[in-house]
Amino acid sequence: MSKQSRTLFIISDGTGITLEHLVRTLVSQFDDMCCERMVLPFLDTETKIAAAMREIQAAASEDGRIPVVFSSIVDPNLRAMLKQAEAEVFDVFDTYLPALSNALGLPSIGHIGRSHGIGDPGEYDRRVDAVNFALNYDDGSRFKGLANADLILVGVSRCGKTPTCLYLAMQYAVRAANFPLTEEDFMMGRLPDPVRESRHLLFGLTIAPERLHRIREERRPGSEYASLPQCRKEVAAAEDLYRSNAIPFLDSTAVSIEELSIEIMQRVGVLRRY
Amino acid sequence: MSKQSRTLFIISDGTGITLEHLVRTLVSQFDDMCCERMVLPFLDTETKIAAAMREIQAAASEDGRIPVVFSSIVDPNLRAMLKQAEAEVFDVFDTYLPALSNALGLPSIGHIGRSHGIGDPGEYDRRVDAVNFALNYDDGSRFKGLANADLILVGVSRCGKTPTCLYLAMQYAVRAANFPLTEEDFMMGRLPDPVRESRHLLFGLTIAPERLHRIREERRPGSEYASLPQCRKEVAAAEDLYRSNAIPFLDSTAVSIEELSIEIMQRVGVLRRY
Repeated sequence: MSKQSRTLFIISDGTGITLEHLVRTLVSQFDDMCCERMVLPFLDTETKIAAAMREIQAAASEDGRIPVVFSSIVDPNLRAMLKQAEAEVFDVFDTYLPALSNALGLPSIGHIGRSHGIGDPGEYDRRVDAVNFALNYDDGSRFKGLANADLILVGVSRCGKTPTCLYLAMQYAVRAANFPLTEEDFMMGRLPDPVRESRHLLFGLTIAPERLHRIREERRPGSEYASLPQCRKEVAAAEDLYRSNAIPFLDSTAVSIEELSIEIMQRVGVLRRY
Repeated sequence: MSKQSRTLFIISDGTGITLEHLVRTLVSQFDDMCCERMVLPFLDTETKIAAAMREIQAAASEDGRIPVVFSSIVDPNLRAMLKQAEAEVFDVFDTYLPALSNALGLPSIGHIGRSHGIGDPGEYDRRVDAVNFALNYDDGSRFKGLANADLILVGVSRCGKTPTCLYLAMQYAVRAANFPLTEEDFMMGRLPDPVRESRHLLFGLTIAPERLHRIREERRPGSEYASLPQCRKEVAAAEDLYRSNAIPFLDSTAVSIEELSIEIMQRVGVLRRY
C-alpha cells in the first residue's frame, strides 16, 4: 500500500470522451491527488469487458484500495457483467435514463456510443469544412471571401487567434477567420482595410503584455518584436482600436480555449453548427 | 401547444461543455426530436440565475410542457435558487458528489467550473504548442524535427490527415505531424524518405475511393486528380504500402474525428499530455 491514490476507471463502448469530461469535473471537486484516471474506450464485447475486469482487479490488488469505475456502456448484458467487478461502479445510464425517460414521457432506445459517432454524416463534413476555412483564412492570409466567415478574430501577433479559431471550427463547425493587427494599422489608427466592411463579424483578443513577451521570446529570442516595451505598445494600441471601433474583446491571458470560444460565440451571437 | 418538443436547458457556471456532452449522450437514447437544447453558460451570480429562470418560465409557457434542466452549478445558494424553477431539474453534483465522496473517503471542496478552467497554466501552453507543431508539420511542409513528433499520420491527399492532427493537438496536446503519400512514393513502392526513419511513429489513414472522389471534386472539379479511377488507384497503392511496411492503419470514411483520434492514440501507444 505504498501509493496514496486509488485508480478511477472510465469505461465506455465509444470513445469515452464525454464520460472522461464528466469524471474530470466531478474529481475537480476533490483533492487533485485522490485518483489516477484510466480510460478504457471501445469496450463493446464480452471479451473486452472481461479484460477490463482483470485490469480493475489488478489495480485493486496493487493499490490496496477498491477502484472507482464510471461506465457509460449501453448494452445491458455487458453492464451486468461489469457490475460484478471488484469496484465501486457508477453507471451513468442507470443513474439518469429512468428518471429522464420519466420526465420526457418517452422510452429509451439503447443506441451505442451515438454522441460521438458519425450519426449525421453532414456533421463531419461541416466540421472539416470549418477547419479548412480556418486554415485558409489564418493570420490574414486571404482577403477574398473573408465576409463568408461567421466571425473574424483580430489581435496582435501571438495573442492566441489561431488556436481559438481552430477550436471553434473543430468543436462547433463555426467558420472563424483571423486577421492580425500590425504596426501599420496602429499608425493609421484604423482597422485593416479587408476587415473594415465586416465590422459586425469582428471580435478582438487581447493579452497581458508580460505573457505576450514570454511567448514571443520563445519564437524570436532577444528581438525587438519580443521585447516587453514593444508588447506593451502593441497591446495598448490594439485595445484603443477595439474601443474606438466598438469591437467587443476579451483578454485571453487567464482563460482556457474552451472558455474563450464559448464566450466569443455568445457575444458575437454566432450559432453553433454542431 | 403547437410544438411537439420540449425545451432542455443546460445550465453551468462554466462553459457548460461537459454537461452538454453528457446530455447529448443521454438524449441520444431517446427520440432525436424529443427536445430542443439550450445551453446557458457562465451563470455565476444570482442575477444571471434569475434571468435563466425567466427563460425557463417562458419556455414552459411556450411549449405547454415542463422544461427539463440539467445543471452543474457548484455554488449551493445558486443551486437552491435554481431548484425553485418551474422545471424538472437534474443536478449532476447532487447526483454524484455524495456517493463519490463516500467512495473516495474524502470531502468535496466546492471549486467552480474548474474542469475547463485554466487551473494548470502549463496545460494551455502544451495544447497551443501542439497546435503550432501540427500546423508547422502539416502536409509534409517541414522535414527537420519531424522525429520530435509523438506520431506521424500518412495518407493520400484529402483523406483527413489535417483535421485529425489538429484534433489530437487541441484535445490531448499530442504533437501530431502529417505527411502525404504521393504518386512518386507509389511508383518507388516505398515510404517517403523523411518518414522512413520514424517508422515506429507512423499511422496510416485510408478512405473509401468514392468518398475521396467527392471530396476532391469539390476542390478541383473535373480534374484527373479528383477522378474516381485515380482515387481508386491511390487508395489501393497506399494500403499496399501500409501492409508491406507493417504500418497500422484505419479507414476514416465512417468514423468521427473523436473516434479516429482515440483509436490512433491507443494503437500507437501515445500518451495524452492533457
